[in-house]
Amino acid sequence: MSDFLKNHIRSVKDFPKPGIMFRDITTVLKDPHALKYTVRQLLKHLEDIKIDKVACIESRGFILGSILAYELNAGFVPLRKPGKLPSKKLSESYALEYGTDTIEMHTDGIKKGDRVLIHDDLLATGGTAAAAVKLVEKAGGKIEQISFIIELSFLAGRKKLEGYNIISLVDYLDEN
Amino acid sequence: MSDFLKNHIRSVKDFPKPGIMFRDITTVLKDPHALKYTVRQLLKHLEDIKIDKVACIESRGFILGSILAYELNAGFVPLRKPGKLPSKKLSESYALEYGTDTIEMHTDGIKKGDRVLIHDDLLATGGTAAAAVKLVEKAGGKIEQISFIIELSFLAGRKKLEGYNIISLVDYLDEN
Repeated sequence: MSDFLKNHIRSVKDFPKPGIMFRDITTVLKDPHALKYTVRQLLKHLEDIKIDKVACIESRGFILGSILAYELNAGFVPLRKPGKLPSKKLSESYALEYGTDTIEMHTDGIKKGDRVLIHDDLLATGGTAAAAVKLVEKAGGKIEQISFIIELSFLAGRKKLEGYNIISLVDYLDEN
Repeated sequence: MSDFLKNHIRSVKDFPKPGIMFRDITTVLKDPHALKYTVRQLLKHLEDIKIDKVACIESRGFILGSILAYELNAGFVPLRKPGKLPSKKLSESYALEYGTDTIEMHTDGIKKGDRVLIHDDLLATGGTAAAAVKLVEKAGGKIEQISFIIELSFLAGRKKLEGYNIISLVDYLDEN
């Protein structure tokens, strides 16, 4: 785990609601050196893996995900909140603490047989990432890796992603 | 203007509502060659300009904006929808056809004197971009360029950005 990166992440108490410690990556992103470092660390885990598409979860997943697509000579595919994508699409809903949420992907975003990296900034309970896995596999994509900058391992998100190659750069073992 | 790029953009009729022709860049992004081409074209206009921060408008502006920050050795600063940024921030509201909208930026995202590129995927009426200009200047940033992939010049967004260095790669002269 990366202390350099952890030192660049800002922790904000009680955001978005009381009792939650928010891990803010904007302090990483605004620093050119920390931004490059983060990209390099993620790429290191992709050295021997050929990727055709990087499927990125809206909206913080877009930030590093597009740089990874660019560096890997892969295509960028956005997984978006409902109602944002204009063409034919696949949808996947998942449970939240209260209620459900949905992400969508263009049907033509991923072709059968595409080797896919799924990327998001943060792995928490794993609900969104598990929905992303279903979307990519529905389209016939082969998931080579699922990568995150931050993992909140006390929320056990990996359990929802068993059998996949999961990478995270910084782990938080508890809420503090 | 780039025919190569225009040929990669998908036009979707009546999205998000009747009478609107939506210009969809996901067909550019998913193609590694078109993605690289777009980045190169945007970078060409930045060859002699030093940029410290790329301020990117949520959420499609994040996609190319982060690659530009990465390539320019600059920091990435997100301009986000209300309630998303956890730390001290600046806000700017702007008029929509009906009602208003707001974008926010962390106060520490841009330092006084930073040379800033503002990036979004699309210039339409210019309301969001003009709000972005105000945010960056409130923080003391010096705007070196405002870049877009697509411009809908029939909506006259440039009028709201007079005096700034505006770049767009593809222009649509009317709704069709």
